[in-house]
Amino acid sequence: MFSTSTYQARRRALIDQMPENGIVFLPGNREIGKNYAANVVDFRQDSNFLYYLGLTHRSVDATLDLGTGETTLYGTDATLDDTVWTGPQPTLRELADRCGAERTGNPNELYQLLDQAEVRVHYLPPYHGATQIRLSDYLNLPVEAVPDNASSALTKAVIQQRSHKTTEEIADMERALRTTKLMHETVMRAARPGMREAALAGTVRGLAMAGGGDLAYGIILTRNGQTLHNHHHDNLIQEGDLILGDFGAETAGGYAADITRTFPVSKQFTPEQRDVYQAVLDAENNAIDRCRPGVPYRDIHRAAALDLSQRLADMGLMRGNLEDAVAQGAHALFFPHGLGHMIGLDVHDMEGLGEDHVGYTDKIRRSDQFGTAFLRLGRELEAGFVITVEPGIYFIPELMDQWRGAGKFTDYLNYDAIDRFRDFGGIRIEDNVLITEDGHRVLGDPIAKTVAEVETLRARD
Amino acid sequence: MFSTSTYQARRRALIDQMPENGIVFLPGNREIGKNYAANVVDFRQDSNFLYYLGLTHRSVDATLDLGTGETTLYGTDATLDDTVWTGPQPTLRELADRCGAERTGNPNELYQLLDQAEVRVHYLPPYHGATQIRLSDYLNLPVEAVPDNASSALTKAVIQQRSHKTTEEIADMERALRTTKLMHETVMRAARPGMREAALAGTVRGLAMAGGGDLAYGIILTRNGQTLHNHHHDNLIQEGDLILGDFGAETAGGYAADITRTFPVSKQFTPEQRDVYQAVLDAENNAIDRCRPGVPYRDIHRAAALDLSQRLADMGLMRGNLEDAVAQGAHALFFPHGLGHMIGLDVHDMEGLGEDHVGYTDKIRRSDQFGTAFLRLGRELEAGFVITVEPGIYFIPELMDQWRGAGKFTDYLNYDAIDRFRDFGGIRIEDNVLITEDGHRVLGDPIAKTVAEVETLRARD
Repeated sequence: MFSTSTYQARRRALIDQMPENGIVFLPGNREIGKNYAANVVDFRQDSNFLYYLGLTHRSVDATLDLGTGETTLYGTDATLDDTVWTGPQPTLRELADRCGAERTGNPNELYQLLDQAEVRVHYLPPYHGATQIRLSDYLNLPVEAVPDNASSALTKAVIQQRSHKTTEEIADMERALRTTKLMHETVMRAARPGMREAALAGTVRGLAMAGGGDLAYGIILTRNGQTLHNHHHDNLIQEGDLILGDFGAETAGGYAADITRTFPVSKQFTPEQRDVYQAVLDAENNAIDRCRPGVPYRDIHRAAALDLSQRLADMGLMRGNLEDAVAQGAHALFFPHGLGHMIGLDVHDMEGLGEDHVGYTDKIRRSDQFGTAFLRLGRELEAGFVITVEPGIYFIPELMDQWRGAGKFTDYLNYDAIDRFRDFGGIRIEDNVLITEDGHRVLGDPIAKTVAEVETLRARD
Repeated sequence: MFSTSTYQARRRALIDQMPENGIVFLPGNREIGKNYAANVVDFRQDSNFLYYLGLTHRSVDATLDLGTGETTLYGTDATLDDTVWTGPQPTLRELADRCGAERTGNPNELYQLLDQAEVRVHYLPPYHGATQIRLSDYLNLPVEAVPDNASSALTKAVIQQRSHKTTEEIADMERALRTTKLMHETVMRAARPGMREAALAGTVRGLAMAGGGDLAYGIILTRNGQTLHNHHHDNLIQEGDLILGDFGAETAGGYAADITRTFPVSKQFTPEQRDVYQAVLDAENNAIDRCRPGVPYRDIHRAAALDLSQRLADMGLMRGNLEDAVAQGAHALFFPHGLGHMIGLDVHDMEGLGEDHVGYTDKIRRSDQFGTAFLRLGRELEAGFVITVEPGIYFIPELMDQWRGAGKFTDYLNYDAIDRFRDFGGIRIEDNVLITEDGHRVLGDPIAKTVAEVETLRARD
């Protein structure tokens, strides 16, 4: 965790931003059972709790009193039985001192405070059923009414604050990227025909854990890169395949990296693979070059779609007026997702607070066009944002067949030529980019990305 | 999954066991968010759903009509958008055919059926908040009333059925043990002074994933083996340390292995480590030898406690009448947990259905004595049970100091001698044992366990 004063300053800034009085309730996460209550999944603290308190400990909660400005940390001290099972633990008072909370209380005092509060209790939208049930109990709300009663004032204030990353946050994200570079380059070296995807995925997870944290999100590591969120690892990889790997480490403090690389199982790309790869890489580099404060990310997304379309036209797969094609969404056959999203304590940063609140404004609203509708970030970039840039080209047989059958975009799409790529798979390339005062900086040390760099890692006896 | 007829027969047997009419509702698990709803933890199907339906797919549910004997599978078919993100999926009808469900329905039909049911809806105790909220909604129950309204008739029938493992279940558990042997022996070979525990834990998880499934439970891999459930992996391991590793694989079908080994970071055990190790190993082998149908596991636990106490007396740490010492619980300073538990689709099999229902009967009830109170299985063994046998000796400074300060068991415990072991750590050795008609069989290929076998794996240049 960062210094005590970091968390004190964050809470002070939040309290100053809140337009009304009341109590801010920040519930810490509880353990979650996998197949029964006591067989728990790896514990992950709530990101908002982490941001304002920094404590990765289980079963603590906090309140901020908007009137007095005081923070209270709630929990219980370990018993001797607890110590036998889980080892010596810091006391609640010691935890409170670490994060600069003025007061401590037991869970019953928390219940009393919230149950009897005569001021508004502000809370963020819950994403765990157990938290929803706790809120229902504390606040005397029907369980189904809990999500709708989340505080939009608190939600907006938290998003405003967490959107701009500080130097110490950037340093932790670059720590995540150091581990992530090792994960990607190890896999690029290790993959061999005949291996199962699961063996490579296991290597990736092992390195994430050895880095002192874990994964930031479920591993995508697949010969079927055309499936955007493919978490299956059952296939044998084969000579001629492309492997798409989209995975990143999370530090012990909770900051994420989110990197995608695509490489050939054979020593070199085929000419066709190389053409598509270079198209995606150029679009990625161009998009990164366009990142600076004041530019709507929606525009960079659209420019990337046009870059990709031009190269697809060079390959004979698209045709006609490409500006029109992109405006109408024809490119989404190949690039059916958004160019990127914010990243920080969450891989899709603050998505739990509402993607449209994070990525859009009253002026820049989400598109409803297939493909661009999946763009998570459309608003103008600001210094301190950290975002992903991740264009891709995919050949999705089900989508090709459906569009062709429906006669969609025949002015722009050469289906006969496209059909020859139906077993191609998909290519995505992704980096994490900090928006600076005068432009941008790609975070972390470079991870093998050019055709030459990738093929060098694949070279083997 | 096993053959369709396996699941049909299991459901038929359950229906035959149920004393009353009504509907059995078996909810499948939903995805669970880690730090927000869409960043999900690795999906694990509910074990009871797996047992009766065999489907590892997300967001399906089932009902059994106790009147007609029919099974209905509920869910939805994938849309084209779903296919773009998650790849081609089997249809609901295809899934129903795999498990032999006669009928299919959509989620709204499930809601209608349960909301309007005029017969009893039997369900098992939920362990996910989201399931509890769904049950509250379906059954018009206050959310806090859902746990108490779980069906004890269904709970008992399921426990009775799942307690006796079939040949195909045993074969899958031995598959888990093959991967688990590799995990343990790899770590025994790989550990070096100066490594971080997390690097070894990462290796373990990677091998579990490469095995086609994942971990059956959170890894314990620590130089602080005296902490019974220690999931921290932050320490550097050092020459002279003992490493306690308690981890096991889960197969793709959901069956668990649960194995503990303890080994020295140096090439050999110290004489003191060897004495304690041999005491635990002999107690484990003796306990395994005592396993056969008709013997209460509580008695085998007690015999193991006596075995350990005799060796601790030989070492000068205990004294006096050891039968009395064990009867009074003095041994629990060193062995403060139970000898073992059932294992199957859950590592603590069926613990979510109530540990006392699984491990105890009206005649054999749980002890309330510190240590033995943690014994999860006390009842008479039966052919077909698979159990763990896992004695240990631990030196827990906080417990030693508390008992000594309170003057506990001074007739049996030589605290001056014990205090010289306060930095020793802990040793546990654990195997998985099938109860057969005429005795027992240790499952899986042997995993290095004798002092000589362990030291051979530790031998290095």
